[in-house]
Amino acid sequence: MNSKENISQAVIRRMPRYYRYLGELLDEGIERISSKELSNMMKVTASQIRQDLNNFGGFGQQGYGYNVKYLYQEIGKILGLDETHKLIILGAGNLGHALANYVKFEKRGFVTVGLFDIREDVVGKKIRDIEIYSSDLIEEFIDTHEVDIAALTLPKEEANRVAQIVVNKGVKAIWNFAHVDLEVPDDVVVQNVHLADSLMQLSYMLSKKHTEE
Amino acid sequence: MNSKENISQAVIRRMPRYYRYLGELLDEGIERISSKELSNMMKVTASQIRQDLNNFGGFGQQGYGYNVKYLYQEIGKILGLDETHKLIILGAGNLGHALANYVKFEKRGFVTVGLFDIREDVVGKKIRDIEIYSSDLIEEFIDTHEVDIAALTLPKEEANRVAQIVVNKGVKAIWNFAHVDLEVPDDVVVQNVHLADSLMQLSYMLSKKHTEE
Repeated sequence: MNSKENISQAVIRRMPRYYRYLGELLDEGIERISSKELSNMMKVTASQIRQDLNNFGGFGQQGYGYNVKYLYQEIGKILGLDETHKLIILGAGNLGHALANYVKFEKRGFVTVGLFDIREDVVGKKIRDIEIYSSDLIEEFIDTHEVDIAALTLPKEEANRVAQIVVNKGVKAIWNFAHVDLEVPDDVVVQNVHLADSLMQLSYMLSKKHTEE
Repeated sequence: MNSKENISQAVIRRMPRYYRYLGELLDEGIERISSKELSNMMKVTASQIRQDLNNFGGFGQQGYGYNVKYLYQEIGKILGLDETHKLIILGAGNLGHALANYVKFEKRGFVTVGLFDIREDVVGKKIRDIEIYSSDLIEEFIDTHEVDIAALTLPKEEANRVAQIVVNKGVKAIWNFAHVDLEVPDDVVVQNVHLADSLMQLSYMLSKKHTEE
């Protein structure tokens, strides 16, 4: 496999989508697929598919196409899904609840091991079998649970302070839903989900359509 | 202002972030800012900022920098935030609740006018002052409320069927949280928020870091 060094963000953004489509093909019992068929299904060009996958060494065979199961597994490895990741959710509001309820994350190896909140009326409750702990216990919990990922589903005013706490305890990945850019060291990776930004992009596309009409 | 025709997705993705930073400067009472200062704050190069804004005609003055309020308003217009958008949320689960509770969307002109769900035990309840209606009423509601945007916060098995209903009723923008690609006509814009994809990108970045060490 090639180095993952110079692979563009755009390619990385597309990989989970390949993974999803291949997973669906696998569920349907389909063993192999040509890049043309995959291209029709996914509405991207066959050349784009080949280019994207060539970043990781290819995986296709001339005249055969792709072995669905093999490609699914290899993309899974690229995405780090061959390992289990322990996740904590910081902020047990509606969004924290929604994340904790996504059973499908577990199938991909993302296991939520705890939620945390400052509000006493939610501490002690459970979502599925996942307990909501007091935020005072975050550090102790990380010390004893080998947490890989912290999801921040709390108000933006709290986000940087709480990010600091988990980073100091050695957490290297933050899934940030707070509408603020986090200040973290270079060895910590952050994936932002800024819902307001997403809504504004939609609004842009909508107003662009109106202008064209 | 130039045509919005050939502006890349990457530029569009960055515009809400400019808008956010300028809004914060405005709140702090700052009247003007150089591209260098903005660059330091946002951790992108000054040349990137100039290039991005040049797509829409510029807005800066040599030796003066940017007028914060003017630039904020102009980016707001580009993003369509000078108009009010009526939003319905289809699926009143945790995620639907979370969206309905974001008061800040309203400040940007996105007003949630109704939620819809098939579950009888939630129909009739309210989130803030927004009512949850039976899904049977979606079409009638759109006929009488000039809905601009439909947010899909429902299981992926339902997503395409429900998207069809709102599109048939003339809704031109879908904010899709269901983990499936929607089949909609060309004149309908879709903004996807695929949380599982986002988590896999984070996992990729994390495993890449490990590989490098």
